[in-house]
Amino acid sequence: MLEKLKQEVYEANMLLPKYNLVTFTWGNVSGIDRDSNLIVIKPSGIPYEELKPEQMVVVDLNGNVVEGDLNPSSDTATHIILYKEFPNIKGIVHTHSPWAVTFAQAGLDVPAAGTTHADTFYGPVPVTRAMKEEEVIRDYEKQTGDVIVETFKERQIDPDQVPAVLVNDHGPFTWGKSAIDAVHHSVVLEEVAKMTYHTLQLNPYQIDMDQYLLDKHYLRKHGKNAYYGQKK
Amino acid sequence: MLEKLKQEVYEANMLLPKYNLVTFTWGNVSGIDRDSNLIVIKPSGIPYEELKPEQMVVVDLNGNVVEGDLNPSSDTATHIILYKEFPNIKGIVHTHSPWAVTFAQAGLDVPAAGTTHADTFYGPVPVTRAMKEEEVIRDYEKQTGDVIVETFKERQIDPDQVPAVLVNDHGPFTWGKSAIDAVHHSVVLEEVAKMTYHTLQLNPYQIDMDQYLLDKHYLRKHGKNAYYGQKK
Amino acid sequence: MLEKLKQEVYEANMLLPKYNLVTFTWGNVSGIDRDSNLIVIKPSGIPYEELKPEQMVVVDLNGNVVEGDLNPSSDTATHIILYKEFPNIKGIVHTHSPWAVTFAQAGLDVPAAGTTHADTFYGPVPVTRAMKEEEVIRDYEKQTGDVIVETFKERQIDPDQVPAVLVNDHGPFTWGKSAIDAVHHSVVLEEVAKMTYHTLQLNPYQIDMDQYLLDKHYLRKHGKNAYYGQKK
Amino acid sequence: MLEKLKQEVYEANMLLPKYNLVTFTWGNVSGIDRDSNLIVIKPSGIPYEELKPEQMVVVDLNGNVVEGDLNPSSDTATHIILYKEFPNIKGIVHTHSPWAVTFAQAGLDVPAAGTTHADTFYGPVPVTRAMKEEEVIRDYEKQTGDVIVETFKERQIDPDQVPAVLVNDHGPFTWGKSAIDAVHHSVVLEEVAKMTYHTLQLNPYQIDMDQYLLDKHYLRKHGKNAYYGQKK
Repeated sequence: MLEKLKQEVYEANMLLPKYNLVTFTWGNVSGIDRDSNLIVIKPSGIPYEELKPEQMVVVDLNGNVVEGDLNPSSDTATHIILYKEFPNIKGIVHTHSPWAVTFAQAGLDVPAAGTTHADTFYGPVPVTRAMKEEEVIRDYEKQTGDVIVETFKERQIDPDQVPAVLVNDHGPFTWGKSAIDAVHHSVVLEEVAKMTYHTLQLNPYQIDMDQYLLDKHYLRKHGKNAYYGQKK
Repeated sequence: MLEKLKQEVYEANMLLPKYNLVTFTWGNVSGIDRDSNLIVIKPSGIPYEELKPEQMVVVDLNGNVVEGDLNPSSDTATHIILYKEFPNIKGIVHTHSPWAVTFAQAGLDVPAAGTTHADTFYGPVPVTRAMKEEEVIRDYEKQTGDVIVETFKERQIDPDQVPAVLVNDHGPFTWGKSAIDAVHHSVVLEEVAKMTYHTLQLNPYQIDMDQYLLDKHYLRKHGKNAYYGQKK
Repeated sequence: MLEKLKQEVYEANMLLPKYNLVTFTWGNVSGIDRDSNLIVIKPSGIPYEELKPEQMVVVDLNGNVVEGDLNPSSDTATHIILYKEFPNIKGIVHTHSPWAVTFAQAGLDVPAAGTTHADTFYGPVPVTRAMKEEEVIRDYEKQTGDVIVETFKERQIDPDQVPAVLVNDHGPFTWGKSAIDAVHHSVVLEEVAKMTYHTLQLNPYQIDMDQYLLDKHYLRKHGKNAYYGQKK
Repeated sequence: MLEKLKQEVYEANMLLPKYNLVTFTWGNVSGIDRDSNLIVIKPSGIPYEELKPEQMVVVDLNGNVVEGDLNPSSDTATHIILYKEFPNIKGIVHTHSPWAVTFAQAGLDVPAAGTTHADTFYGPVPVTRAMKEEEVIRDYEKQTGDVIVETFKERQIDPDQVPAVLVNDHGPFTWGKSAIDAVHHSVVLEEVAKMTYHTLQLNPYQIDMDQYLLDKHYLRKHGKNAYYGQKK
């Protein structure tokens, strides 16, 4: 069942230690088959060095395990909300990568401070508000998804153009057109968070780049007038 | 004698260079057999690349060498105090890992600033008070253990829930249910110290996470209602 | 056609991941044959692990592709301006290396703060002014080259003595007597940006080194009285 | 001639890239044979990956090359002064390791902020005063040695107890009982500079450790009452 997607989600999970995004079992990647609405996700608490493609867990959009002997990631309910509310995405990544966590713990957006950021994210990577006590106590992982969605709606951010968020005092979620694509966004987020942290130490004034430079760099890589890379 | 424990303590010691927690011979790991009250500990000053399982030294709770040709770690007396006073622990690690040392030298706790911390430590990782001259001059290593125990008692911290401490102007000790478990706590401490250092540079206000979020994350991984990972 | 230069430009491109100067496909290296005025440059958006010498693209000084099936780097127009205006250079590198980007995003020069800097750069590595909206909208990559040239002219900096620049809110370009030489300058720039960032955090006053020490170190390695290294 | 010392000096040089203390050809190690007063030192400007034991250059205390086809390190005159003035040392290292350079460029000592420092250095690692124009213009490398010696004399620091210095706006020199020992001191200096830099960012007050703790840690590893490590 969904063998190809399982293999891809497995490989995407294995990129997390390769790109130094995780310590121990922290972090998880999922992918969705939009035809069957089934999600393939990492099992909870399994070390990456022991992980196998056949251990990937299949769950439906109600969170029921459809296939697999292991418990799915404890963050599965967050993934489900994002797949429901962001209809174009097909892969999700959660990590505790240290530079993204730094901004999440500080309760600050990663501002769009340069073209490295603009090549991937069309504006600041937002941080959510702190979750309320009742949201944490009850259905915590689902509520985590809800507060992410709320952030994008209230701030009118398009999740296809800014495929990343920082959950307050927690860490990043990223997404994309595939599980691999979502991992790439995690790598870029970590890199721009690192650069922009240091920029803020050097010069906390005028950190935001000009809108026209942001437009230029995002749109030379994305959308119908893109001209970066090779014709496909 | 205690061959299995020697092998485990040896392997735990070898994880220190693997996880980049030590330079040269800095750092040591021990484990205890609670039935015989015998401790297995790294010999003093031996480089990790030359270390062998059979070189592990066996000492009793009075610090007498029961087996082994080499001197035990110069920090053995500190380990003994912790095993005596913290009855549930079975492994101890001491390192000079740089981010934990940064807080130790600054004389500051590592505050609980986010869920990465809360997944392992149920509250701030405390720093001890500075040791007094008479404590340093006489029975220094034993007194180091005493000041750790004093810190946990006075601040009413449960060492099973916060398995780590920073000795002022010195560095971290961590412990756990086994020598390997204690090493894992050293890795997590180093990672959260790094993240939270950077968070403090970005935003030194409101660094402490909400208590209910701390509760949620600690308790979803620890205790009878934990639901992270696989059933065992 | 230009097989030797293609091989050298290929090898210079492969040094970027080796020296940890790039993430994914970010960055590009070119070289020029000054006899034919033909430039060999990396193709756009090709991952380094898949790159082959025969994929290098040959373009002329008008930006026309003379040989190659792939699109040249999207930054080709910037390279062309630099080759036209800086007549002694034969290789150019662009990266988003994080410490150089930190200064570029902060809109600050990398000051000449010590002998490591002076051994390679005869004065501060300048940052350009921010580009104007009309420069970004139209012929952006060419205008990027123009603003670099303007910076060196207005500040009367000799590009042979300071073979590097930071484009504001973007990142570094470096150049040299060959593609490999230009990569070496990228490595040195990243290293001195890292050191000098930290120096500025420790002591932001009197960051500039004495002119006579700058002279001494630059001139013991460069020019007719140089005495560093072996006779050639 | 001095084959054993050449091999040792070669191996000590090769430790510099192993411990990430050098970029390209920056840095050099020498050793002295105190019987013949001959110094073995790295040749100038040779990349480490190409270095061979037989390329080591033999010079006398007047700086004359006694054996070897290559130019000795451009810093040879500095090494000679240190061997002349610090009679107990037998090995010297110079690097541009980034954390030590950070303090050198800031013109600040590395203060003794914790036990990691005290285990190797019996007090702050001093920075020299800035060199004067006439010192830089004439006999620069010899004068560099002189200003190091002046620093230790004026501040009454014993070079056997603090085997390291930072040359202002330049970088570190370390020394020891052998070339390998001197490299070890370079590694420790880099590590404590890193830790103490970060400590200063967290808490710039009361950075100096208590004298009695400094005494304890230095003396439990050094001198006749040392008890760290194994009997020899």
